[in-house]
Amino acid sequence: MDREDSLERLGATTDEPADLFEHFEQRSVGGRTHHVLTAARHGVERGTVIVEESDAVVRGYPSVPRVLVLDPGLPSFFEGTDSVTIEEKLDGFNVRIAVAGGDGDVPLAFTRSGYVCPYTTARARDRLPLAAFFAEHPTKVLCTELIGPETPYTTHDYEGVDSHEFRVFDVRDRESGDPVPVADRRSLCAEYGVGQPRWFGRSEPSAAVETVRDAIDELDAAGREGVVVKSADGESMVKYTTESQHHAELAYAFSLPFEHGRDFVFSRIVRDAFQAVESGDSDDRLRERARDLGESILHPMVSTIRDVRDGDPVGERHTVRGDPDAIDALFEHLDDQSLTIDRRSDRREDGKRVVEFVKVAESSRDRIQYYLEGGTRDE
Amino acid sequence: MDREDSLERLGATTDEPADLFEHFEQRSVGGRTHHVLTAARHGVERGTVIVEESDAVVRGYPSVPRVLVLDPGLPSFFEGTDSVTIEEKLDGFNVRIAVAGGDGDVPLAFTRSGYVCPYTTARARDRLPLAAFFAEHPTKVLCTELIGPETPYTTHDYEGVDSHEFRVFDVRDRESGDPVPVADRRSLCAEYGVGQPRWFGRSEPSAAVETVRDAIDELDAAGREGVVVKSADGESMVKYTTESQHHAELAYAFSLPFEHGRDFVFSRIVRDAFQAVESGDSDDRLRERARDLGESILHPMVSTIRDVRDGDPVGERHTVRGDPDAIDALFEHLDDQSLTIDRRSDRREDGKRVVEFVKVAESSRDRIQYYLEGGTRDE
Repeated sequence: MDREDSLERLGATTDEPADLFEHFEQRSVGGRTHHVLTAARHGVERGTVIVEESDAVVRGYPSVPRVLVLDPGLPSFFEGTDSVTIEEKLDGFNVRIAVAGGDGDVPLAFTRSGYVCPYTTARARDRLPLAAFFAEHPTKVLCTELIGPETPYTTHDYEGVDSHEFRVFDVRDRESGDPVPVADRRSLCAEYGVGQPRWFGRSEPSAAVETVRDAIDELDAAGREGVVVKSADGESMVKYTTESQHHAELAYAFSLPFEHGRDFVFSRIVRDAFQAVESGDSDDRLRERARDLGESILHPMVSTIRDVRDGDPVGERHTVRGDPDAIDALFEHLDDQSLTIDRRSDRREDGKRVVEFVKVAESSRDRIQYYLEGGTRDE
Repeated sequence: MDREDSLERLGATTDEPADLFEHFEQRSVGGRTHHVLTAARHGVERGTVIVEESDAVVRGYPSVPRVLVLDPGLPSFFEGTDSVTIEEKLDGFNVRIAVAGGDGDVPLAFTRSGYVCPYTTARARDRLPLAAFFAEHPTKVLCTELIGPETPYTTHDYEGVDSHEFRVFDVRDRESGDPVPVADRRSLCAEYGVGQPRWFGRSEPSAAVETVRDAIDELDAAGREGVVVKSADGESMVKYTTESQHHAELAYAFSLPFEHGRDFVFSRIVRDAFQAVESGDSDDRLRERARDLGESILHPMVSTIRDVRDGDPVGERHTVRGDPDAIDALFEHLDDQSLTIDRRSDRREDGKRVVEFVKVAESSRDRIQYYLEGGTRDE
C-alpha cells in the first residue's frame, strides 16, 4: 500500500501519512490483507478499508447528525438547499456491500466498523442481484440495512419480514464516498428490483417539517424507528426518531445495564424530552410518555437482575437462518471478536440451518452477580 | 510544611512525598495557607487539609460504600463484626468543623473537597456550642450535615427545620481520622446538646437487615434519604437509600441535564432496580415504581427546556439567611469558585439578611438553547 497515494485518494485533512495510518488496524480476510480505520480521523470515516493487494478503497459510511427539534432544525440544517427528500430510517444492521478486490473478486459485506461479516455476505449474495449490479457498477458500494427478526445483530420486527431482508438506502462511490443523487438511486434500485426504505416525499426544507411530523406520527404508531432527511443530491443528511424507538432502545440498554455506555442511555432521554417540548405534549400526554419511559427503563433491568438471581442466561438473543457453511463462518467470526456465545438450539428447516443463540453479556451478568452477593459500590 | 513528616502522619501508602503532594492544591484562607488534597490518593481522603503555619491536619471524610441489596449485603460487609448501629442518613451539606490553627484560632467549616465555606462557618458558630466543645476536645473534628430548605447547597425539606440546622453524625480525630465509637459519640453530642441523626437501633449484622428494611419503609414514606449502618466502633460503615431519594436525585439531575455526569443518573437507576428485586415488588408495585421513575426523569427536563425556550432562568434555586457580613462572604466564596449567581431577591427579616438566588446552570442553558435553535448532535 502506497501511503502517500492512499492519503491523497482518501482526501484526508492531514499531509502526514502517519497521522492517519496509526489509526489503521490490519486484518486478514480470505487471504487478503485489509487495512481498516478504527475511528473517524482527519476527515476519513470510521470503517474505511484499504485492501492491500488491489489497493481498492471502501470508504466508511458517514456518521449522520441528528436534530432534536424539527423546527427550526430542518430549515436551519438545510439552509441554502432547494429541495430535500424524506425516507424511512430502518432499525437494522448497517452494511456496505462492495467488490473490493480486482477483476473476478466477489462482493463482500462490510460492517460499520469495517469487518467483513461472512453471514451477511452470504445472505447478500443470496438475496440481492449482486453479480448483475456490480457487473455494471463495479466501483459503487451498496449501503444497506439488514432488517428483520432473524439476524445475528438486531431483532427489530418489521411487518412482512419473517426472517431477514436487505433494504438499500444509499449507493455511493466506493472510493470517494460520493452519493448517487436520491432520485437516481431510487430508480437504480427499482431497476435491479432491490428493496428500499419507504419514501415520504420531497419538498423545500421548511415544508419538510410538516411532512416529517406526519411521518413520525405514523411510524411511531407502528413502532418504527424514524426518518432520514437528505438534500436531493444525497450529500447532506440528518436524522430524527420516534418516541417508541427511544423507549425501545432504552429497554434494550437497560436489559444489559453494564454493557452499554452511560451516554447511550442519556442521549435517548434527551431526544424524548426535546420531542415532548416541540410536540407541545399536554400534561396527560407528557405523563403517559414519562410513565412509558420509566417502564422502558426499570422493567428490563429488573427482569435481567431476576434472571441472574435465578441462574438464567443473560444477553442478546438472536436467531440466524442460512446455509450451514455460512452459519459456521458466522460463529467463527463472532468468536474472533471474543464474544461468548451460548447456543440454545440448532436445527434444520427446508435445507437451511437455524440456530438460536445468546451473546452472553458477561459484564452485566458478573456485575449483577457481585451486587446480589452483597458486593458494595464506591461512589 | 515538612513533607516527609506529613506523609508519615497521614499514613499514606507511598514512601515518596511527591506521589501524594502533586495532588495537593494551595489555597489562601484568612491569611493562612491551606494545602488541600483534591482527590483521594494513596490511602488519604479527598479534602484532607494541611495548614501551612500550624502544620495542623484536617483529614477528609472517607467515602462511604453502598450496598445494593441488604441481604446478604449487610451480613457480608460486616462479617466478623459483633454489633452494628443504624442511624439515619440525611440529605444535606457535609462539612467538617475543626480548629485547624494553633491556640486562639477559631473553628472553620470545611466542605467535602476541603474548601472553607464562610457561610457554613458563620452558621456553625451561631448554632453549635463550638467554643465549649473545642475547649475540651481541641483535636477532634465535628462531622455534620447542614440540612434544611435555606442553605446555599441543598434544599431538601425536613419536618421541623424551617431554615437550616446542623446534625452531627460523626466525631473523629482531626489528624488520624479515627472515629469516636458510635455510642460514645451519641453521648458526647447529647452532653453538648447538638442535633444528631435519628437512631434506629443496634444489633447483630444479620438482624440489622430487618431493622433497616423497616427504617427504609418509614423514611421512604416521609421522603427522607436513607440510613448509614456502622460497626459499633465507628470504623466500618455502609449506606442504603430509599426509592423516594433515588427519584428525587434523578429529578434534580434531569432538571439540569447538561451539568451532571451520566454516571450520576445511571447509578440512581441501578439502586432502584436492585431494590425492586430485593423488595419482591409485585407487578403493580413495580409498575408504580417505574412510572414514578419515568416522571422523575422526564418532567424536570421538559420543564427546564421550556424555561430556556421562554427565557426563564435555569439553575439551582437557593435561599440563605444570616448576618449581612457572612452573606457577603458567601457570595465572594461562590464567585471564587467561578459560579454565575443570579440574585432574585435580597431583603432583611428580623435583623438577618435573606437572599434568594439561582446558581446559573450555564451548560444546560447553553446546550438546550443550541438544540432549540436547530443545532445538531453527532452520535
